[in-house]
Amino acid sequence: MPDSLPVISVGFFGCGVVGSGALLALQQNAAAIERQLGARLEVRRICVRDPQRARPVELAPGVLTTDPAAILDDPSIQVVVELMGGVQPAGDYLLRALRGGKHVVTANKELIAKEGPALFAVAAERGLDFFCEGSVAGGIPILRALQVSLAGNRFSELIGIVNGTTNYILTQMAQTGKSFDQALGEAQALGFAEADPTDDVDGFDAVYKLAILASMAFGTRVPLDRVARQGIRNITDRDIAYARQMGYVIKLLAIARRQDDGLELRVHPALLRVSHPLASVNDVYNAVFAHGHAVGEVMFFGRGAGSLPTGSSVLGDLMEVARGIRCGGSGRVNSAGLADLPILPIEDAQSHYYVRTETADQPGVLAAVAGVFGKHEVSLESMLQKRADEQIAEIVWITHRTREGRLQAALREIEALPVVQRVSNCIRVEE
Amino acid sequence: MPDSLPVISVGFFGCGVVGSGALLALQQNAAAIERQLGARLEVRRICVRDPQRARPVELAPGVLTTDPAAILDDPSIQVVVELMGGVQPAGDYLLRALRGGKHVVTANKELIAKEGPALFAVAAERGLDFFCEGSVAGGIPILRALQVSLAGNRFSELIGIVNGTTNYILTQMAQTGKSFDQALGEAQALGFAEADPTDDVDGFDAVYKLAILASMAFGTRVPLDRVARQGIRNITDRDIAYARQMGYVIKLLAIARRQDDGLELRVHPALLRVSHPLASVNDVYNAVFAHGHAVGEVMFFGRGAGSLPTGSSVLGDLMEVARGIRCGGSGRVNSAGLADLPILPIEDAQSHYYVRTETADQPGVLAAVAGVFGKHEVSLESMLQKRADEQIAEIVWITHRTREGRLQAALREIEALPVVQRVSNCIRVEE
Repeated sequence: MPDSLPVISVGFFGCGVVGSGALLALQQNAAAIERQLGARLEVRRICVRDPQRARPVELAPGVLTTDPAAILDDPSIQVVVELMGGVQPAGDYLLRALRGGKHVVTANKELIAKEGPALFAVAAERGLDFFCEGSVAGGIPILRALQVSLAGNRFSELIGIVNGTTNYILTQMAQTGKSFDQALGEAQALGFAEADPTDDVDGFDAVYKLAILASMAFGTRVPLDRVARQGIRNITDRDIAYARQMGYVIKLLAIARRQDDGLELRVHPALLRVSHPLASVNDVYNAVFAHGHAVGEVMFFGRGAGSLPTGSSVLGDLMEVARGIRCGGSGRVNSAGLADLPILPIEDAQSHYYVRTETADQPGVLAAVAGVFGKHEVSLESMLQKRADEQIAEIVWITHRTREGRLQAALREIEALPVVQRVSNCIRVEE
Repeated sequence: MPDSLPVISVGFFGCGVVGSGALLALQQNAAAIERQLGARLEVRRICVRDPQRARPVELAPGVLTTDPAAILDDPSIQVVVELMGGVQPAGDYLLRALRGGKHVVTANKELIAKEGPALFAVAAERGLDFFCEGSVAGGIPILRALQVSLAGNRFSELIGIVNGTTNYILTQMAQTGKSFDQALGEAQALGFAEADPTDDVDGFDAVYKLAILASMAFGTRVPLDRVARQGIRNITDRDIAYARQMGYVIKLLAIARRQDDGLELRVHPALLRVSHPLASVNDVYNAVFAHGHAVGEVMFFGRGAGSLPTGSSVLGDLMEVARGIRCGGSGRVNSAGLADLPILPIEDAQSHYYVRTETADQPGVLAAVAGVFGKHEVSLESMLQKRADEQIAEIVWITHRTREGRLQAALREIEALPVVQRVSNCIRVEE
């Protein structure tokens, strides 16, 4: 390309997995990207902790720095791409960047889930672009779809598999009969799970992503502590086997539903019919299913994490910032001005449930347990009885739609029955 | 909303299925849309052929007109939404609209497939927006995803089910054993197929959509006569039954692949393994699968046609035009400046094939036919032999990957064998 092309000057914070992916994706397709933009993206400075670390991408000499001011105080840098992760100091850097008139691209889900509205407001005030496509579901272009192409819709529901680590673990458990611990160990060995897997397996990561999705689809702030959260540590290979025998798979779902009186927001494992479109989303793939008043059902599927896929989203955002700069019209998509829709307590959410009970293996037990369900008006959809060992029978129940509070009352009474050893698991079933 | 909101003034051409859907979708969600845009979309004039016709949407008195000039010559109208269909006079209207400084939204696939590049160039020259999300796959937000969120990718492949009518017919044939004619008649009765179904069942509609998709993904012009096209009229209930026995379904696919020396572009029925993500896309649903160098595999699924779903795309485009007007930065996504990548002849495309032969029911026939395949270096992957009636056996063959020319030579020689009645069908198999 001729050197006379206008240049868009970019500063990166972070050059780990996602940063390298974005830079690689850009380098590998630079000519076509320049042709599309009529401009050249120049990554002028990259602020990292350790400039000596080996990176899978070739960088111009002198581009690495450990000094944030080299980016934030350089007025020639027009766009800041933040891929460090964590709330601080990333949040401060972005605030300083915005106040300095720089556009922002980030893939930092924790920061956006926690501080997004405040940052969006500053960007909107100053007419700056602020994009974060890479913060949810890696390479899947879901956020811009919600905010632009589908923006006219009133959404009633979002359901997603948005955490690749747990989806890999659950897929391995289902396909090879591994236990949770075995599958987790394998995921760690392959780099799909962190040494401390809490963020993924306990559902925090999925909560961040759900909060961002719901905020954009429903135009509301989402206080994270109001999102019901349950991870997958309590899912056993036995639950997965029983679910399969009854025609279900188990997935960690992120669910947002608009009800008349507010939003239902929850992250938890759930049984899904094998014929459900999300049931066949396996391994590290992600998918998000949305329902809008005009579009009806729409689903997005792709790689939910990884260097190049997330890099693809970052690069797409960066190109969109560049288009705005080129045509003198930035700050178009305004994510500020959010409402505060009420978030409904999980106890009020209705659901079908899978309940696994360990009981004495003797006549009359089934009727006794079923009787307690009936007394609490929890009606039963199906049942599977298995002998676990010589004394113990396992009975698995799928209930019809019921309120959580009612189910919990029934389970407390069932657990107190003399013939019942314990209620060994209780998992929601999504239709 | 207060009346002091700035107004974006819009003129519609056409108020049929899609036009009514876009207007309804807008009316049903007007307050939220105004909040998002900080502006009110006002549909000032709607040009139709017959103002007396009943429409499922409430219109302000005096908004309907039969005079195109009432829109084109009104300098206060900032955006033209064209939903008439057909190349003329729609193309002339849009050209006049652009020359008059009006932004354009259209869902007219035939027009964009045939005249898109010329129209895009005029829009680009004048810094105007020109969006056509509704022209491909109804409500599925695929075009903007390719052009914005995934814009950094070098795409290698697109595969889609992009025609709802044929997908409905093939689904009915597969699920109920109906013949093509029965299923077509039913689709016509339900309004899913036109009285003259040529455009859909012979693949023209899918060719338009593939041309638009490929043009945007690969940044190239697509001469329509270079796209290989085959419809579904030759698919019998028998083919569908045999395919199922061998683990396949039959779908009308639109395929674009980048090869070293050019693009493969083709629309034809094909066998897909039941486990393929597109195999379970049924009825009037559409789906598009793309592969980009950074994002990897990504899939979009949703309603491929219909009033509100396509209206959702039109409305999303209109809102994006409004954002551009509001922030003074229109004409960002530049679809002009397309390349002319070579389109490869279908004869050079390699594929697996399903071949159905009717033969004498006597020993040695199978070996004779297999021998001819072998002679032409077409190797065989699987075979299914069925007795059709007392004298005739049907043998279904699935070949390994081979060049079309080689297969055709083998089929000619097989058809000439004395023990072979005829080669009764030949359908590609996509992996």
